[in-house]
Amino acid sequence: IGSNSVDTNSQTEWTDVQKKIIPWKNSTPNLDLELVFQDRAAKLGKSNSRLIVVASLIDKPTNLGGLCRTSEIFGASTLVVGSLHYMQDKQFQHLSVSAEQWLPIIEVKPSQLVDYLQQKKTEGYTAIGVEQTAKSFDLTEYCFPEKSLLLLGNEHEGIPANLIHHLDVCVEIPQQGIIRSLNVHVSGALLIWEYTRQQVIKQRQQK
Amino acid sequence: IGSNSVDTNSQTEWTDVQKKIIPWKNSTPNLDLELVFQDRAAKLGKSNSRLIVVASLIDKPTNLGGLCRTSEIFGASTLVVGSLHYMQDKQFQHLSVSAEQWLPIIEVKPSQLVDYLQQKKTEGYTAIGVEQTAKSFDLTEYCFPEKSLLLLGNEHEGIPANLIHHLDVCVEIPQQGIIRSLNVHVSGALLIWEYTRQQVIKQRQQK
Repeated sequence: IGSNSVDTNSQTEWTDVQKKIIPWKNSTPNLDLELVFQDRAAKLGKSNSRLIVVASLIDKPTNLGGLCRTSEIFGASTLVVGSLHYMQDKQFQHLSVSAEQWLPIIEVKPSQLVDYLQQKKTEGYTAIGVEQTAKSFDLTEYCFPEKSLLLLGNEHEGIPANLIHHLDVCVEIPQQGIIRSLNVHVSGALLIWEYTRQQVIKQRQQK
Repeated sequence: IGSNSVDTNSQTEWTDVQKKIIPWKNSTPNLDLELVFQDRAAKLGKSNSRLIVVASLIDKPTNLGGLCRTSEIFGASTLVVGSLHYMQDKQFQHLSVSAEQWLPIIEVKPSQLVDYLQQKKTEGYTAIGVEQTAKSFDLTEYCFPEKSLLLLGNEHEGIPANLIHHLDVCVEIPQQGIIRSLNVHVSGALLIWEYTRQQVIKQRQQK
């Protein structure tokens, strides 16, 4: 199984939209592969997070690679990208430091996002846009549901208006600076962290 | 005044260690310069944050540029770098999106850090290392003092042991992933955010 192989048949919950990828390095010896698979499955199974990070609108491989690393570290359940081809990009790989091997990644093209959001909402997810709007919640005041889907905006255009209508809520990061807004990887990282922090505190209180 | 000019005389609180920089673009017309200066001074004066971000141990211009942008957006009072030369680096400038024009930046070389930390501690700052140690506080449990100095570690070696001894406390970010730790810019961003969030909530409670 090479790094270009994309499993489009098995384990696909929602055909036409979701494609699972298992991007193994070509250089991995075959004998080790099975062990790596088993280990990966065991480790991936450990993530009981219900956080989906949707990065389909993001264009820059550096931002996607960084988000991949950060999402993996905080145990997000899935990273959604606009094209699986990004994962073969050198800049992506440089920034992801191989996190794509340990995080379920699926492809949902920007044109498929409305359908994808609808689907996830019927599964009980709250669709949260990271965007400044007149009705956005301040990140210091927003309480994340356990099943949270974060939609990140494009580097230049943010989240298009037609998608905003399909979100349950928008959340914005209060910013005091003079220059333009935060980098999208950093914005995403702060929301992923806030979700994680709140879950940790909830779990602590339940004990 | 060109982008290479470094003011080593006036406004220097602590000679030999601190150097203020006002990195104006050469391309800015002279007539506008005074207005820009006035505007900058007014805006910079508005930051009443007591957060110092010390990035002297960081080597990569991309990480420094990103931190510069993030520090400016959250109104940090000062960014400390190991060398002011980084600000002329193309990668730094690409990532900072000109935030260096709106944030006080000083140079403290790694060899000067012990003295700098001591000085800031006598000024009432708590020196906080972003590092995993046996005694580190979990970021979900740490309460930031108003006067906080964050020391970030080197990309490869973290914070050297001799500097850890001079810190008041270390804080670590709980990480569940399989791959190695967060990127240093992201780690820094999460602590800057946590500081900001706590200050916002404190101010809200005081009203």
